[in-house]
Amino acid sequence: MTYCVAALTQQGMVFASDSRSNAGVDQVGVFSKMTLFEIPGERVIVLLCSGNLASTQSVVSLLKLHMKDSFGAINSEGMLGLKSLYDVATLVGQTMREVMSRDGPSLVQQNVDPNCSFILGGQIQGKSQRLFLIYPQGNFIECSQETNFFQIGETKYGKPMIDRVVRYNTSLRDVAKCLLVSFNSTMRSNLSVGLPIDLLAYENDTFQVRLRRRFTEEDPYFSEISQFWSAALRRVFSEAPDVPWL
Amino acid sequence: MTYCVAALTQQGMVFASDSRSNAGVDQVGVFSKMTLFEIPGERVIVLLCSGNLASTQSVVSLLKLHMKDSFGAINSEGMLGLKSLYDVATLVGQTMREVMSRDGPSLVQQNVDPNCSFILGGQIQGKSQRLFLIYPQGNFIECSQETNFFQIGETKYGKPMIDRVVRYNTSLRDVAKCLLVSFNSTMRSNLSVGLPIDLLAYENDTFQVRLRRRFTEEDPYFSEISQFWSAALRRVFSEAPDVPWL
Repeated sequence: MTYCVAALTQQGMVFASDSRSNAGVDQVGVFSKMTLFEIPGERVIVLLCSGNLASTQSVVSLLKLHMKDSFGAINSEGMLGLKSLYDVATLVGQTMREVMSRDGPSLVQQNVDPNCSFILGGQIQGKSQRLFLIYPQGNFIECSQETNFFQIGETKYGKPMIDRVVRYNTSLRDVAKCLLVSFNSTMRSNLSVGLPIDLLAYENDTFQVRLRRRFTEEDPYFSEISQFWSAALRRVFSEAPDVPWL
Repeated sequence: MTYCVAALTQQGMVFASDSRSNAGVDQVGVFSKMTLFEIPGERVIVLLCSGNLASTQSVVSLLKLHMKDSFGAINSEGMLGLKSLYDVATLVGQTMREVMSRDGPSLVQQNVDPNCSFILGGQIQGKSQRLFLIYPQGNFIECSQETNFFQIGETKYGKPMIDRVVRYNTSLRDVAKCLLVSFNSTMRSNLSVGLPIDLLAYENDTFQVRLRRRFTEEDPYFSEISQFWSAALRRVFSEAPDVPWL
């Protein structure tokens, strides 16, 4: 399983993804699900993925392969050349369909789900920051100020906290903290979502990534916030009013 | 959708269920998903249901129909006559299979899911209290002191809080409060889970139900705990340590 989430706010965007990949319980690996495409000062594009690992890796490999032409120059039709995030989302969707039409039938024949989905966000010089959710079929929807976050993978355990905290005017700092709390709740309830967590915050109109961090099992901050959150929840729970029985 | 949950503790058992039933978004109704079978002083049996409403209603109707014989005497093979909770769970499973074999094929033909599942808990004089989860296939598992709660329906949004609070030695009072908080989180994230909530607490070895309450939209306690919980979560969130960016 996987858990990825990204939020769009006035100050910028925050992306977070876990790194556990499993095929059954006895084949567990660590694979980052966050890919950054960046030309500092010109564009930042972040891709988060969920679903069949062979499919998502193939999509990302093909996107990287077609980024530059055979002379090393930026391909105007690739991730680093396209003029708008909308076109980039279309490219990702097309690449997904390409991989699906190549690998899908063999997998379906063996009762393996070939599907994957992506969250795509970023900003290109001269344009606004944008955040998209790309469905397994390759079509996509875009975030708005009212619905300003997307999740893929094991989304439910960690959603209530984001629903309560993350708004369009929430600070990047608070959004980052909230997404980590959301990961903490998810990892407690689903063993197939696991550390390390990749966290990236993009500050609007900077066209470069200055805030990025990986939280491993030894990370003192992630331990601290996990313990704080558990203790705080138990404390406020004990302060909550008791049920008045009739 | 539906959300039902029940927990087994040293002091007794707590059961909670929502009351929203929907077939699409434009056909929404209120149906209680909690059924109590009781002979005060002798037995208490509580049934919570999830899934296809026609299926669950048929199962409950058949269980009630076969409770007494044609002369009004308790049928020794029915809900009020069987000597152990294990036999009651077997009866519910058999009745589910009966309904499935009658209605299932017609529903499957129309691509309608006929499945349902039940949580069954209670106590019969001379025996211990027991709590079961009955799968759509009619087989079942039983709670233990280590895994002391079961959920059916829309289970994920409300699970993290129960995971943190509800243990075998947690007081009935705290379990009841925690289940309501769990409902609050679920209802915020899934519109198809809705009030009223039926809440019932059974005190171990009393063989009767003294604590039962329905929470409607106008219920001042449910509003109070919802508001308290939202405010408290935001407050402890603001007190949580910020992410240290490298």
